[in-house]
Amino acid sequence: MSLDLVPSPFAPERFPDLPAIAGVRLAVAHSGLKYAGRPDLLFVSFAEGTQAAGVFTQSATAAAPVLWCREALAASGGAAKALVVNAGNANAFTGEKGADTARVTAEEAARMVNAAARDVMVCSTGVIGESFDAHVLTRHFPEMVSGGEASWEEAARAIMTTDTYPKGTAASGVINGEAFRIAGIAKGSGMIAPNMATMLAYVFTDAAVPAALLQRLLSECVEETFNRITVDGDTSTNDTVLAFATGQGGAEVDEGDADAVTAFREALHAVCHDLALQIVKDGEGISKFVTVKVSGAPDLAAARAIAMSIANSPLVKTAIAGEDPNWGRIVMAVGKAGVPIDQRALEIFIGGQLVARNGAVAPGYDEAKAAGHMKGREIDIAVTVGDGPTDITVWTCDLTHAYIDINADYRS
Amino acid sequence: MSLDLVPSPFAPERFPDLPAIAGVRLAVAHSGLKYAGRPDLLFVSFAEGTQAAGVFTQSATAAAPVLWCREALAASGGAAKALVVNAGNANAFTGEKGADTARVTAEEAARMVNAAARDVMVCSTGVIGESFDAHVLTRHFPEMVSGGEASWEEAARAIMTTDTYPKGTAASGVINGEAFRIAGIAKGSGMIAPNMATMLAYVFTDAAVPAALLQRLLSECVEETFNRITVDGDTSTNDTVLAFATGQGGAEVDEGDADAVTAFREALHAVCHDLALQIVKDGEGISKFVTVKVSGAPDLAAARAIAMSIANSPLVKTAIAGEDPNWGRIVMAVGKAGVPIDQRALEIFIGGQLVARNGAVAPGYDEAKAAGHMKGREIDIAVTVGDGPTDITVWTCDLTHAYIDINADYRS
Repeated sequence: MSLDLVPSPFAPERFPDLPAIAGVRLAVAHSGLKYAGRPDLLFVSFAEGTQAAGVFTQSATAAAPVLWCREALAASGGAAKALVVNAGNANAFTGEKGADTARVTAEEAARMVNAAARDVMVCSTGVIGESFDAHVLTRHFPEMVSGGEASWEEAARAIMTTDTYPKGTAASGVINGEAFRIAGIAKGSGMIAPNMATMLAYVFTDAAVPAALLQRLLSECVEETFNRITVDGDTSTNDTVLAFATGQGGAEVDEGDADAVTAFREALHAVCHDLALQIVKDGEGISKFVTVKVSGAPDLAAARAIAMSIANSPLVKTAIAGEDPNWGRIVMAVGKAGVPIDQRALEIFIGGQLVARNGAVAPGYDEAKAAGHMKGREIDIAVTVGDGPTDITVWTCDLTHAYIDINADYRS
Repeated sequence: MSLDLVPSPFAPERFPDLPAIAGVRLAVAHSGLKYAGRPDLLFVSFAEGTQAAGVFTQSATAAAPVLWCREALAASGGAAKALVVNAGNANAFTGEKGADTARVTAEEAARMVNAAARDVMVCSTGVIGESFDAHVLTRHFPEMVSGGEASWEEAARAIMTTDTYPKGTAASGVINGEAFRIAGIAKGSGMIAPNMATMLAYVFTDAAVPAALLQRLLSECVEETFNRITVDGDTSTNDTVLAFATGQGGAEVDEGDADAVTAFREALHAVCHDLALQIVKDGEGISKFVTVKVSGAPDLAAARAIAMSIANSPLVKTAIAGEDPNWGRIVMAVGKAGVPIDQRALEIFIGGQLVARNGAVAPGYDEAKAAGHMKGREIDIAVTVGDGPTDITVWTCDLTHAYIDINADYRS
């Protein structure tokens, strides 16, 4: 790593306290695959009976570990005994050799935990197109399963690439008098895009949740969180979100118990939401965190298209970096979204102030006030596009010189 | 204008020689609307009987002059007596006032040339959302129609905004023994995006071409040229391409004369192609000109989606700026394009060298050779995605610090 990454201005002062999750055991190691002097390999073991669910990139060039996880989850019916994650090499576009590496990694991990290979999830993140031998990872497994346990922070650090801080969060609830806990970790900073399961995130709970239900709830929560963030509109080959329910905590979530499902879904949503926003707040080169809300759209597809057109526009993002309340570029981005709207019905708000309506600048618009809002770290853009029933909120960051430094000078 | 724009490395040494087009009279003036010390207003008068055709932005927030031109062309059946273009203010998202400005501008121009308002095309380019009085432009019209004529270079300069050089080109041909000439000028540097009529371009010929035929040929040529370039994926509210055929040169193009149509179409295509590439080569902050060819796609929509996914990817564009043959990002961009392909059928070429095939890096790939190609000014990326019948070529530039300087520091 030749580039010294400047920490995001949104980096938290310290990693949050995450609860232990009964039935989850963490271990990290340094494989030396790419990074010097820091752990880059995570091995998570699960209690017998742990249920798993996953959401993966929709990329047509999905990586070998993604293909492995999809097949393994289908074959096992949502059982999981271990999770292996390596950082620094994505094992993407690596052909038969890459498929072998993913399979052998799973087989060796399965041997460690007395399971079938299909019970092991394997994930990789880093450079695309360079294959490596499974042995680089598997030789560390014996020590990882028998040695000391790692903390959540160490686990979150082991999966980082261009991230400038480790990302973790937790939530909890009570179901029929039994407490449950959810802990989650994630990585991601660039190659972050919408409408797909995004980047690597892992969510662990001690509640008992059947795999099919866990899958449905995870898919719903991902759609409302990870799928509504963007850093650069570029979708990774390796995006993966996995959830694991160990059932070791006493709380049970049954499909027929609406209150239990609601309580668990709320906590799961909170964890996904927080991790997703942490990824945006570590967006490559970020100086401003941007919330884009679109209201009055005819349907979710239209709302998403308009919101993402704004959130991915290089001209909107550079104007924000320059602290310029250049609302004309928001008009442009709405216009190019491919959604037929009546521009006379368009309303634009910056920092809560009405900027434009009736097809023109709003009477009394105070540009100095808007400019003041743009100097802050958190920028709010809201757009009303008509009187339709659908709202959406998406989150992004600005486009700065540091993004170009990171991506022109560093092969990540 | 507080920013000193560094000239594009692709700026030609001098403006090309363009032929006079019989029936076309050029005049420029300095309105003072935005720019100090340079003409920013173009008035073109046409001979009686001139036929016109236009292709306009598909933006849902199209500007007042775009709406005017669409309606006027429909009302006049493709007749034109004058064209007025101002730079520095786009007259976009300016409501009723903006519509009045476009209409009054056309009416005053029509009075100058003894025509109806519907025979006048009006175009604007520059900042969005600020209205202005037509008088700022119209007060210069009497002097412009009675004073000295301007050169093609002066006309091309008068319509520039963040362009670093004026853009013009010409072509000619012979139809049934009669020579014809086509001259074209264009402006554009940022807010350049695909799948729309792109930016301002004007094409003038002395051939006689009926408006309906001129419209069909213009639409076809725009689809293959202006609609296949991108600088930043952001589509302007004001994009317009207009063609004018004065019929003053002797050559006639009739729908039933296939050879004549072919000869004229070839010349028109050459002019559109050259102007489109000149726009990319003046892309904001450009250091590399990039040709992206996609082959073997099932249809044009798929080919375009994949090519534009590569050409608009911030990660591909920053890698090119950094002279890094980071082909994994090309894999990523192909994967995210939303087109189902078999990644084992994907082949990637950089500078003509086979980089990847069969789902992995190609045996014998020479990265040093690819890195050498990346150090050049003109970068060639070619991708084969299957054995389908459709190819496409699109053109773009890299994403550099200078793009951010221009767009974070300067409200254009």
